[in-house]
Amino acid sequence: MARYSPSIQNLIAQLSSLPGIGGKSAQRLAFHILAMDDKDAEALTSAITAARQSTKRCTCCQNFTDSDPCPICSDPLRDKTTILVVESPRDVSTFERAHEYKGLYHVLHGVFNPMKSMSISDTTIPDLIKRLADHPEVTEVIVATNQTAEGNATALYLSRMVGPSGIKVSRLASGLPMGSDIEYADDLTLLSALKGRVMLSGENNEA
Amino acid sequence: MARYSPSIQNLIAQLSSLPGIGGKSAQRLAFHILAMDDKDAEALTSAITAARQSTKRCTCCQNFTDSDPCPICSDPLRDKTTILVVESPRDVSTFERAHEYKGLYHVLHGVFNPMKSMSISDTTIPDLIKRLADHPEVTEVIVATNQTAEGNATALYLSRMVGPSGIKVSRLASGLPMGSDIEYADDLTLLSALKGRVMLSGENNEA
Repeated sequence: MARYSPSIQNLIAQLSSLPGIGGKSAQRLAFHILAMDDKDAEALTSAITAARQSTKRCTCCQNFTDSDPCPICSDPLRDKTTILVVESPRDVSTFERAHEYKGLYHVLHGVFNPMKSMSISDTTIPDLIKRLADHPEVTEVIVATNQTAEGNATALYLSRMVGPSGIKVSRLASGLPMGSDIEYADDLTLLSALKGRVMLSGENNEA
Repeated sequence: MARYSPSIQNLIAQLSSLPGIGGKSAQRLAFHILAMDDKDAEALTSAITAARQSTKRCTCCQNFTDSDPCPICSDPLRDKTTILVVESPRDVSTFERAHEYKGLYHVLHGVFNPMKSMSISDTTIPDLIKRLADHPEVTEVIVATNQTAEGNATALYLSRMVGPSGIKVSRLASGLPMGSDIEYADDLTLLSALKGRVMLSGENNEA
């Protein structure tokens, strides 16, 4: 005998296919959804449908947006000479939260990853190349992909593709997080912090 | 400027109202849902709708089911003399997974909780009382509510309501979990394990 009825099992299966939702959480969510008011359940499903219908990619930066171009690309106060390249829309919100960066963005929607057969054309790198050609005012591309093998490979690819055009290509510094203990740092982070050490007196920064 | 477009913000708000989903997980889920194929997104929303439409409560045990009476209540091989009372449908599946209990269930869909103004009539206790009157073959009610103040209050209430009718009312043993270390047990569990200690030789079990 099945532990749950077919429609509940299907709901649990659908929920557990979402990222970060394991079997137990999916069960908990499913029974919560079954016990919801009709109004709340309707609000949940229509939020999913509405967000998917009204959300498109900004033709300029490829971020998810309701309006095209997105609020950041159409903001006259943003610095149009700098493009920060990130892997996902969530990374844009992380930078926006910090209120430090005033330039534009480009969302790759993925990284070069041969293991998952993600090639350059599965990302928006071709759109970025075209965007740079159309906007000669851009002087610097800051690559803010994650500090992973795939993120680094993507950064290297971008620097090779964009570098020859005379546009500066930089990468976010890697090293010890602020407030962290050296005792708990992993070997790769320590190595990268050591290689990227900054001169406090005497000579210039040695990269 | 809003960090996300209104429809995405609404989706994140809806998702973070679900149990166990915090702000970060809701963002992650929302962007996963936006990046889904149309087919997968349709499967998710229709699973929610279908499960809610086809799921009702079993008129006998009050568990969620597609068919009424539910597969457990209509199974001729189950022992009809024992009813195990649980707080939620998930608890039924926990017992079923253990393949030990062969009787019937009764799902309360809540517990007596004055703090959340949940009274007896917000649970299915009245249905249980009626069920016991209609089924004189029941000889024992095992109360398997959680080991919380509310679960204990509900168990006490049930024993007072059902006890006078001559039906045995029992409660799951509380004590140290199997395989646990005494060093890490909390005070209440230790106290309950001590009070419920079992005689290994000499006298009978001292409750």
